[in-house]
Amino acid sequence: MNKNETPTILDGTALAAELRQRVQERAEALASTGTVPTLATILVGDDPASATYVRMKANACRKAAMASRIVRLDAQTTTEELLACIAQLNRDPQVHGILLQHPVPPQIDERRAFDAIAPLKDVDGVTTLGFGQTAFGFARYPSCTPAAIMALLEHYRIDLRGRHAVVIGRSPILGKPAAMLLLERNATVTVCHSHTSELERHVGMADIVVAAVGRPRFVQGSWIKPGAAVLDAGYNPGNVGDVDYAACAARAGAITPVPGGVGPVTIAKLLEHTVAAAEAQVAET
Amino acid sequence: MNKNETPTILDGTALAAELRQRVQERAEALASTGTVPTLATILVGDDPASATYVRMKANACRKAAMASRIVRLDAQTTTEELLACIAQLNRDPQVHGILLQHPVPPQIDERRAFDAIAPLKDVDGVTTLGFGQTAFGFARYPSCTPAAIMALLEHYRIDLRGRHAVVIGRSPILGKPAAMLLLERNATVTVCHSHTSELERHVGMADIVVAAVGRPRFVQGSWIKPGAAVLDAGYNPGNVGDVDYAACAARAGAITPVPGGVGPVTIAKLLEHTVAAAEAQVAET
Repeated sequence: MNKNETPTILDGTALAAELRQRVQERAEALASTGTVPTLATILVGDDPASATYVRMKANACRKAAMASRIVRLDAQTTTEELLACIAQLNRDPQVHGILLQHPVPPQIDERRAFDAIAPLKDVDGVTTLGFGQTAFGFARYPSCTPAAIMALLEHYRIDLRGRHAVVIGRSPILGKPAAMLLLERNATVTVCHSHTSELERHVGMADIVVAAVGRPRFVQGSWIKPGAAVLDAGYNPGNVGDVDYAACAARAGAITPVPGGVGPVTIAKLLEHTVAAAEAQVAET
Repeated sequence: MNKNETPTILDGTALAAELRQRVQERAEALASTGTVPTLATILVGDDPASATYVRMKANACRKAAMASRIVRLDAQTTTEELLACIAQLNRDPQVHGILLQHPVPPQIDERRAFDAIAPLKDVDGVTTLGFGQTAFGFARYPSCTPAAIMALLEHYRIDLRGRHAVVIGRSPILGKPAAMLLLERNATVTVCHSHTSELERHVGMADIVVAAVGRPRFVQGSWIKPGAAVLDAGYNPGNVGDVDYAACAARAGAITPVPGGVGPVTIAKLLEHTVAAAEAQVAET
């Protein structure tokens, strides 16, 4: 990648529209055989941002000829109660995908809850098994945000083979699976995190930077190698990403805006996984 | 780490002896209650190196008051036949750990075979689920070679937090789990492989180098940052590691010899996992 005057804008809104179009066609084909692909979203507690995300996902389902069901559980829900809810959705033949909105209240064992989701309905790739499958290159449904990052890189034909990718963040549903997907595509991958010393030096070597920190405008323009691709998976209050956009855009060869970058593609991937799950479940019966 | 005149030799023979002593005590305690911890090793085909490894593991079991059973299958074995063999060992209450000797002949679907091993008996951490658990920091039994690398680093009190570790290799039972274990211990981790460009530059930045390439004397002394810890997980014909030992030792702050480094600790970890599996299976009944 060479540095041009203006970077390529990795337009997630446009890519998401394309992906959603294909999803809608598949959803309509399924609906014509009597199955409406359905996503169940579980929202525990009343975090306003989470409520907004859940609503956005439900709206996106509706627009793509799919159905959604929102299960609201109060903030005092126990792990056992949540597990019972997940078990019921696992058994429900009219639910094809299950998404547990993250984060859950602190009294809940989130890992146990994630791992209770049936693998065939784990459309956000949150189970431990699903992560292993992602790492080994054969996941049905990798986590949606890492999948969105890969879709953007592929759509804009950003070369990964042998290139150096630096992922900032190591969460089980974002940093780690993103690293594994980049590695499967033959990038050399470095995972940085809160304990990393010399973060700037690592980022400064990267051909591809994935910011998954959850801290507003954390990645500074001065860190970016001229011409690098910068993918911002952050979404902080006030529509602000994890990347200082203006400063990074001045050096990057390609960059995702926030909003309109990784976010809309993530939702499109969720729909795509849900339709695929519905197709697979129909084929099985 | 500062460069001294001579590096610390990370003595795997000594550490393995210590670990085996504790394993033997646990095995004897179990035996006194009527359960002899038993490892079943499956050897498919007649690769002489594999046959040697399997024999070494069986001998190590015997010396630690454990039992071993070697299942030999001929080189024409099909995946289905191997799966049937694994299923039988899964059901056998007198078998506590199952190890499928790697590599298997090309007609076998190795991933399917690995994933057929019951999680409670997967003492070499080869299942996809086991890898996910390793990556998330709660594996019962991570792969033995990465576990051995971590045991050596811990035993010799080599600081990992915030340090830069470079893993060369990305196999499902060595490079990838080693990377994940280092990440769990708060190292910044880079995974390099056959497509990596500028390998020397990456290795030259590392405080900790893990060589898991499977190519004799691949890692050159000139690549090593003075004072770095070098862990050689390779074991090539003629007792040669993946590291050019003499040249790397001249720069490293700490280094594993081959033989006598990672190898013996790997076998000790296998025994430790098998005893732990036996304890867990006894507790369950």
